[in-house]
Amino acid sequence: MNTLSNKNSYSTITGENKPKLTIVKVGGKIVEEPASLKQLLADFAKIEGNKVLVHGGGRSATAMATRLGIESKMVNGRRITDIEMLKVATMVYGGLVNKQIVAGLQAIGVNALGLTGADLNLMRSEKRPVKDIDYGFVGDVKEVNASIIAELIIKSVVPVLAPLTHDKSGNLLNTNADTIAGEAAKALAEYFDVTLMYCFEKKGVLMNENDDESVISVLNPTLFEKYVSEGIIQGGMIPKLENSLEALHAGVKQVVITRSDQIHTDSGTRISL
Amino acid sequence: MNTLSNKNSYSTITGENKPKLTIVKVGGKIVEEPASLKQLLADFAKIEGNKVLVHGGGRSATAMATRLGIESKMVNGRRITDIEMLKVATMVYGGLVNKQIVAGLQAIGVNALGLTGADLNLMRSEKRPVKDIDYGFVGDVKEVNASIIAELIIKSVVPVLAPLTHDKSGNLLNTNADTIAGEAAKALAEYFDVTLMYCFEKKGVLMNENDDESVISVLNPTLFEKYVSEGIIQGGMIPKLENSLEALHAGVKQVVITRSDQIHTDSGTRISL
Repeated sequence: MNTLSNKNSYSTITGENKPKLTIVKVGGKIVEEPASLKQLLADFAKIEGNKVLVHGGGRSATAMATRLGIESKMVNGRRITDIEMLKVATMVYGGLVNKQIVAGLQAIGVNALGLTGADLNLMRSEKRPVKDIDYGFVGDVKEVNASIIAELIIKSVVPVLAPLTHDKSGNLLNTNADTIAGEAAKALAEYFDVTLMYCFEKKGVLMNENDDESVISVLNPTLFEKYVSEGIIQGGMIPKLENSLEALHAGVKQVVITRSDQIHTDSGTRISL
Repeated sequence: MNTLSNKNSYSTITGENKPKLTIVKVGGKIVEEPASLKQLLADFAKIEGNKVLVHGGGRSATAMATRLGIESKMVNGRRITDIEMLKVATMVYGGLVNKQIVAGLQAIGVNALGLTGADLNLMRSEKRPVKDIDYGFVGDVKEVNASIIAELIIKSVVPVLAPLTHDKSGNLLNTNADTIAGEAAKALAEYFDVTLMYCFEKKGVLMNENDDESVISVLNPTLFEKYVSEGIIQGGMIPKLENSLEALHAGVKQVVITRSDQIHTDSGTRISL
């Protein structure tokens, strides 16, 4: 495929007028149950302008592995992808979940195109080196062909990205959906004003973990450090937000942490520099 | 996605100078065993110019269904696709087989893009009406978005088509890979001089079914009728060749019946009007 011959044709030199792009990452139960998937796709369709959907599917993969008598090996809470589990991931992520999303979006007028990192060589990864733990067929992203994805988006195609990459040597590799979304967002920041939206079970980052309505609406590096020092932000949310800040430093305009039923609204926690 | 604004920009009004396109349909064991798949992809890569690969995967689907305890229901030798079998087809055709082919082609420099009929709304079908037999979630192709496929091909993308379509109402449907190849060939004949290549276990249509080397190298409607009347062509080969002639009458330039290890050569049976 030809790369975009002149990417500045739709962005000014200062980058102030780049078109907007929203990348939504959803995972877990939302995409794996017909009713919640249907609602999600309706909400996603309401997002105006250019958009990309990145999905997980770990629960379905685990359930399918169980049905096939394949043991889901976990080390420190992380899945080990052996060759049998890679086949399950390829079937479930690349086939079942991805194509059901694509068909569901096409039914409501969204011109979806399901993609893995192997398709059009969009995301090349390398098998994670074995240090203390052998994660198996897990790929760390090394290269994103952002110009090809951008070219599709400009033509009003809505990419639906499955959490699979390839090593360009014929092997598919399992890659975390959060990572796919983050790497796509960083690479596409050259072409678009990117809002990267992570869906969680809560409405956003909470001031008080016991009050689901206590959403912090705005965060930036200064506020993040303040809230961490005050113990308001803690635990697993810290690395998540550190990854968000890293994406912002890499050119992503805004990261939003929200709940899937709010993706088409201004709710949630909006993080920018 | 924008349709091609002026399809005549790469074909003359007489159609004499349309670019060539080879559509190869492979199925069965070839794409489902790593060694034969690797050889097939190497041979496919040797085909010069524009090309499309259409694959089956029925054996893998049956094997996966068996592992999952799903009964493969057959009526008159044809598979009945119930909702559980549709999920297996979506996983195996759209995920496992398709993405392994795409990764394998990318490894040897072919810019493959795996597609179902749902992606980019490429092939819309309708669930086959129930007459004597309820085939279940099987789709009869009603519409092919040939201009979108043509646009990809012109950009040197190599579509890899899985035997799945959609009804544009959110449902994926199982569609025979021979049908996918035939419908794609007929629709793309508007843009290309299409050679449609069906891979069989034999080297081509045989003069003598007991002599694998007795390949009929050239066929046309007159010769076809002659060989049928002489009893040389008989049985299941008759409807296959009738379908080939129908494709030719619909604008396909040439149909080739060959063996998968010959797809990059001039061997096999070449059928034209």
